[in-house]
Amino acid sequence: MQFHLNGYRPGDPAIAEPYSVMTALPALPGEVDVLIIGCGPAGLTLAAQLAVFPDITTRIIEQKPGPLLVGQADGIACRTMEMFQAFGFADRVLRESCWINQTCFWKPDETRPGTIMRSGRIQDTEDGLSEFPHVILNQARIHDFYLEAMRNSPSRLEPDYGRTLLDLVVAEAGPIHRVTATLERRDGAQVVTETVRARYVVGCDGARSFVRRAIGRALHGDSANQAWGVMDILAVTDFPDIRMKVAIHSASEGSLLIIPREGGYLVRFYIELDKLAVGERVADRNITVERLILAAGRILHPYTLDVKEVAWWSVYEIGQRLCDQFDDGTEVAAPDGAGREPAVFIVGDACHTHSPKAGQGMNVSMQDGFNLGWKLASVLRGQAAPRLLGTYSAERQAVARELIDFDREFARMFSAAPKRAGDAEGDGVDPAEFQRYFARQGRFTAGTATQYGPSLIVGDARHQALASGFVIGTRFHSAPVLRLADARPMELGHVVAADGRWRMFIFAGAGALPEDNAAVWSLCAYLLDSPASPIRLYTAPGSDVDSVFDVRIVLQDVPPEMTAAAMPALALPQKGKYGLTDYEKVYRPDHRAGDIYDLRSIDRAQGCLVVVRPDQYVANVLPLDAYDDIANFFGGFMNPCRTIVDRREPAKQVLFSEAIRT
Amino acid sequence: MQFHLNGYRPGDPAIAEPYSVMTALPALPGEVDVLIIGCGPAGLTLAAQLAVFPDITTRIIEQKPGPLLVGQADGIACRTMEMFQAFGFADRVLRESCWINQTCFWKPDETRPGTIMRSGRIQDTEDGLSEFPHVILNQARIHDFYLEAMRNSPSRLEPDYGRTLLDLVVAEAGPIHRVTATLERRDGAQVVTETVRARYVVGCDGARSFVRRAIGRALHGDSANQAWGVMDILAVTDFPDIRMKVAIHSASEGSLLIIPREGGYLVRFYIELDKLAVGERVADRNITVERLILAAGRILHPYTLDVKEVAWWSVYEIGQRLCDQFDDGTEVAAPDGAGREPAVFIVGDACHTHSPKAGQGMNVSMQDGFNLGWKLASVLRGQAAPRLLGTYSAERQAVARELIDFDREFARMFSAAPKRAGDAEGDGVDPAEFQRYFARQGRFTAGTATQYGPSLIVGDARHQALASGFVIGTRFHSAPVLRLADARPMELGHVVAADGRWRMFIFAGAGALPEDNAAVWSLCAYLLDSPASPIRLYTAPGSDVDSVFDVRIVLQDVPPEMTAAAMPALALPQKGKYGLTDYEKVYRPDHRAGDIYDLRSIDRAQGCLVVVRPDQYVANVLPLDAYDDIANFFGGFMNPCRTIVDRREPAKQVLFSEAIRT
Repeated sequence: MQFHLNGYRPGDPAIAEPYSVMTALPALPGEVDVLIIGCGPAGLTLAAQLAVFPDITTRIIEQKPGPLLVGQADGIACRTMEMFQAFGFADRVLRESCWINQTCFWKPDETRPGTIMRSGRIQDTEDGLSEFPHVILNQARIHDFYLEAMRNSPSRLEPDYGRTLLDLVVAEAGPIHRVTATLERRDGAQVVTETVRARYVVGCDGARSFVRRAIGRALHGDSANQAWGVMDILAVTDFPDIRMKVAIHSASEGSLLIIPREGGYLVRFYIELDKLAVGERVADRNITVERLILAAGRILHPYTLDVKEVAWWSVYEIGQRLCDQFDDGTEVAAPDGAGREPAVFIVGDACHTHSPKAGQGMNVSMQDGFNLGWKLASVLRGQAAPRLLGTYSAERQAVARELIDFDREFARMFSAAPKRAGDAEGDGVDPAEFQRYFARQGRFTAGTATQYGPSLIVGDARHQALASGFVIGTRFHSAPVLRLADARPMELGHVVAADGRWRMFIFAGAGALPEDNAAVWSLCAYLLDSPASPIRLYTAPGSDVDSVFDVRIVLQDVPPEMTAAAMPALALPQKGKYGLTDYEKVYRPDHRAGDIYDLRSIDRAQGCLVVVRPDQYVANVLPLDAYDDIANFFGGFMNPCRTIVDRREPAKQVLFSEAIRT
Repeated sequence: MQFHLNGYRPGDPAIAEPYSVMTALPALPGEVDVLIIGCGPAGLTLAAQLAVFPDITTRIIEQKPGPLLVGQADGIACRTMEMFQAFGFADRVLRESCWINQTCFWKPDETRPGTIMRSGRIQDTEDGLSEFPHVILNQARIHDFYLEAMRNSPSRLEPDYGRTLLDLVVAEAGPIHRVTATLERRDGAQVVTETVRARYVVGCDGARSFVRRAIGRALHGDSANQAWGVMDILAVTDFPDIRMKVAIHSASEGSLLIIPREGGYLVRFYIELDKLAVGERVADRNITVERLILAAGRILHPYTLDVKEVAWWSVYEIGQRLCDQFDDGTEVAAPDGAGREPAVFIVGDACHTHSPKAGQGMNVSMQDGFNLGWKLASVLRGQAAPRLLGTYSAERQAVARELIDFDREFARMFSAAPKRAGDAEGDGVDPAEFQRYFARQGRFTAGTATQYGPSLIVGDARHQALASGFVIGTRFHSAPVLRLADARPMELGHVVAADGRWRMFIFAGAGALPEDNAAVWSLCAYLLDSPASPIRLYTAPGSDVDSVFDVRIVLQDVPPEMTAAAMPALALPQKGKYGLTDYEKVYRPDHRAGDIYDLRSIDRAQGCLVVVRPDQYVANVLPLDAYDDIANFFGGFMNPCRTIVDRREPAKQVLFSEAIRT
């Protein structure tokens, strides 16, 4: 898609006029299950996740009067695209975004002082790392897609704009709705104070988070001492790699990062500016966009830069800062759940800040929201014990720490003066070394290197060898398969929708028929019929058999005449009000696209069970007959259920469970 | 995507509630350029095409009070998906539709009388036939996508519902707006008569077309003598191929065609019913849906069928009928344009009817609309001489005739009793022969076999050998390429958007640099600078260089360090109000996906020019130095232009040309 030719225009490029800003400001309810503070990427990811559960009352508030229209982040890592697939809009992003296919490196041309030359060009994402590319799209459009997903969800969730958080009080114990938030709503000249009581409050309110301060957490880390400028421009240039991602180290004018943007014309520049004194803020320097343009032009020399329009620009200082804990709980990580359970969480920039140039901030923040969303839903719906919530801070704080370490090194190398040929010492960085570092960190920046450690919801590596390509604690790495019932080629990972369900992928050993592969049939029988089966224990009577655990079977060898009809009952569930058959549970390798057994190193003789969390992470890899391990794993955090009646719609038999708690 | 589990629900499956039916009925303007009668697939294709030209006043009226919600056609051929790509919504259809990957054939099981057995299974679409699969989606959703494309277009076209055509009068000569349509608008109890004068009227008003009768054309062909039933159902069955496309010939209960549908649960059945007497209408037989269900159950024996919900059903008689001419012109096909130019056209079912089982009706009708749309726009915008319009009937009537011949044979074979083993004679059809016929006709049913004969806008085959995989008169068969400026892998055919522009694909011979491949650089110089160049002659001064002819270059060999900046000026056009550079004109083979030179048998030594029409059909294949041929081809129907001022927005310099006509 090409757009922005005649100037930057916010909104859906398929529609000629911009979205109108919402103006209706209905009052908030006095009591909610979850109150989300801030409509950034983290808050919207969380809101979109919770919106699929109409039995949970969620509200998301935002200080601004309407949706974001321009600016901010733009990098979308492969891992984030996988998550967007789970939310149902990866195809929209693929269509509209700029794909980063190669990254170019430029350095001083020592034969022609004051000019630059290309020193290298690498493939941006290694082959097979993800089924999705690394893409670039304005953060505002990501917001739009989340807002649409929320609007289309059963709960029809819409943000409440124009609200500022004034106060947040957490009761030590007592009512279920432990947190009281006081908000100020500006409706034209009128100012109204609103009070909302919530079971959980999540601060997605950015680096200057009010919520963080309210729960007594603080960001710790380096003081910023390097100023940078960023601008989204429409320009004419003869720089040849202007539609590639480019890192330029000039000899003495500083560094420049070029990010081509959606629509074919727009480009983002990150421009190195001044060193700052300790404690100095870049905002105090009154840097203008004209200065950014001049600095960029000097770095690009001898190439020309004629800026026609600046769509958005900003200046910032680099600082890597991190909270020690991302919630207000105490000792909640202990297996016995001692201490106070968390009632307030902080997410995204509210608990970790870093430089934008590695394109990580928005991605990591959204993964924070995805990590927390299903956990809150599981606890609120009574499916899981509240101690599950402690895993949010444990898992995501470790990820943020890794990010900050990476970012500090990346920023250092990017800002260092390039080492000249023959220089043996000094703190200059060899451009070739920077290129190697960049390539080596590819999995990290793609977001696929994240690995959660063993916990309540991540098993140990005892049986990892059964499928060494599905690394426990990392995201389920999709691979191509054919659906048995209709021979459709597809990505197996795309069955993991953001619907709060657990997945069990049963990979059959050798042989396809019951007599050849009794382990699959026996496991299915156990899961469907045994009183110890998690499906029996944790799925409410009367609800669909796959409403909590979605079991999918991959057969290794399928005789030509075999059909889905030969599958075990669990693989052909009868669902919904008519008891219709769901034919989409059974798959086989797609030999044209690559055999999933080879691609993910699955044990062909034994097969295995791969348990995948609602946020797409591999929770466990187990043998097909490890019934006790399966039962024990889910028994560690799930609550046996009894059918209850929804308090809002007592006439309806509800399809979820409630904890039996003391 | 899975949906319809708890009953059929019309509308966007991503949204929980159905679309509301539009109720506002604004008055129609008294004068329009094009008046389209009927909001079926043909009319909407035409409307969506014309909607991209805000300088053309188009209206589309429909008898029904609002958009279609259920029923009708559902098969979408590969070729149609390619067209949807040009309209910008192929990805939406891919996501939501059911993909047909295999077709199964069932016949009587002679060892167990009264039962059926599978006799064969074939891949539905041959490898490499199209980059798109054959898919199935409710016609109502196709309407929705067209309506959205119209709504998002610069002209913001919306249908005028609730209008019935009462009268149509064509003036022999005289005013530009030659056709006068009288309409009746029902607004609740009120009935209002409206008169609209139009330059062109297009009847997309179905098999009982009022427009067809008004211009004195008639459908000719077989009388129908075979009744069929069709139903969209949610059912439980143990028939194993229920999610495949299946043709079943039972021994004595008739034939059944199963089409799996979108959402994973819905299925369409076409059920053979009674032979009819000559002149008898199936509607007179009062056939009920219960009878359809019973007949389907008998054919499926020994498999069970438990129908839970019927989302839509109908009965019809097969009849293959065709008009001799699809417009009201006389002798317009003559090169001198003698006779009366057409002012009224008929499209889709209004000029050809056939059985729905081959899944061709909607597809061929939409291609009718696509064929006519750009031609009307070219003439209305003054770019082309009115004699261009004569090619619509000539091209599409031939396609419809082929379709009807195919359909007659297909319907005969489908309805014939299956030949039993050992039967040497009789009119029974061997199921294996039916399967072979079906496979052999795969390109035809995929819509890719259409080939227009030589005409004003289709060249002869003199230079076909330069690219034997781009067959002149057939649709441009897309292939994978890499875009030079950003190394993005993509389909070359996807640059052909439905925007009324012609494409010139320049395939370079051996060598990439100017000195090695002077022919490409010389051709670009000719196109940009020669007074005889079509770009110079037919593009209005002041408009973008690619606003009429969009030139794309494919280089065969690209040195690693080569960038788009080394390209000829025509390949790096400066566009729009800022003169920004368009970097998306140059490509190279994508060796991972397959070299386009091999895939389309392009002459590697000489290269070639492939001229592609606005409706994606290959108009010509020429040597790179055939300047006179290029000039003569476009000179045959295009008008040299002068800049004019839009009558609606005189302040704006307009970007289109007007014919210099006597």
